[in-house]
Amino acid sequence: MPNRQVNPLLREVLGDSLRDIRTRQRRTLREVSSAARVSLGYLSEVERGEKEASSELLAAISGALDVPLSVVLDDVARRFEAYASVTVLPVRASVAA
Amino acid sequence: MPNRQVNPLLREVLGDSLRDIRTRQRRTLREVSSAARVSLGYLSEVERGEKEASSELLAAISGALDVPLSVVLDDVARRFEAYASVTVLPVRASVAA
Repeated sequence: MPNRQVNPLLREVLGDSLRDIRTRQRRTLREVSSAARVSLGYLSEVERGEKEASSELLAAISGALDVPLSVVLDDVARRFEAYASVTVLPVRASVAA
Repeated sequence: MPNRQVNPLLREVLGDSLRDIRTRQRRTLREVSSAARVSLGYLSEVERGEKEASSELLAAISGALDVPLSVVLDDVARRFEAYASVTVLPVRASVAA
């Protein structure tokens, strides 16, 4: 992907975080989307980083996962930090490109 | 505001955080919006929590502020934590309503 920007986007990292939280709970997309009252397709797109979650739906999803939004954001911040610490190494930057 | 929900929304807390970072730098909306290549009106709406910032524009704004997104998200997470610790007190909940 030659045009891939170096830093991931918030929706991509947030989606990874939400998916990891859900799968650690061994819950399905169907269960969590139903609990959050969002469509399964929407939740799936959010988890894949393909759609921006509105603040209202993000609150509903974190509520359905029973995880405070502060914990989700902390996890997302840690992932961005980890990413930044990797991309200062030129060899990794070329691998990521 | 009787129908005001108890928990603030991400866009509201994110907007507060971005505005505080900008004002601590003593920079104007015009300066930062120009550096981020977003319209002044858009940045103003984001800071007031009235508009969802797309992941691309959030990256541009945090870049213009020269603050890593991880730092912004950390700040937002702390604000949500502080809010949660306040709202367990009934007297504060009624004041916030």
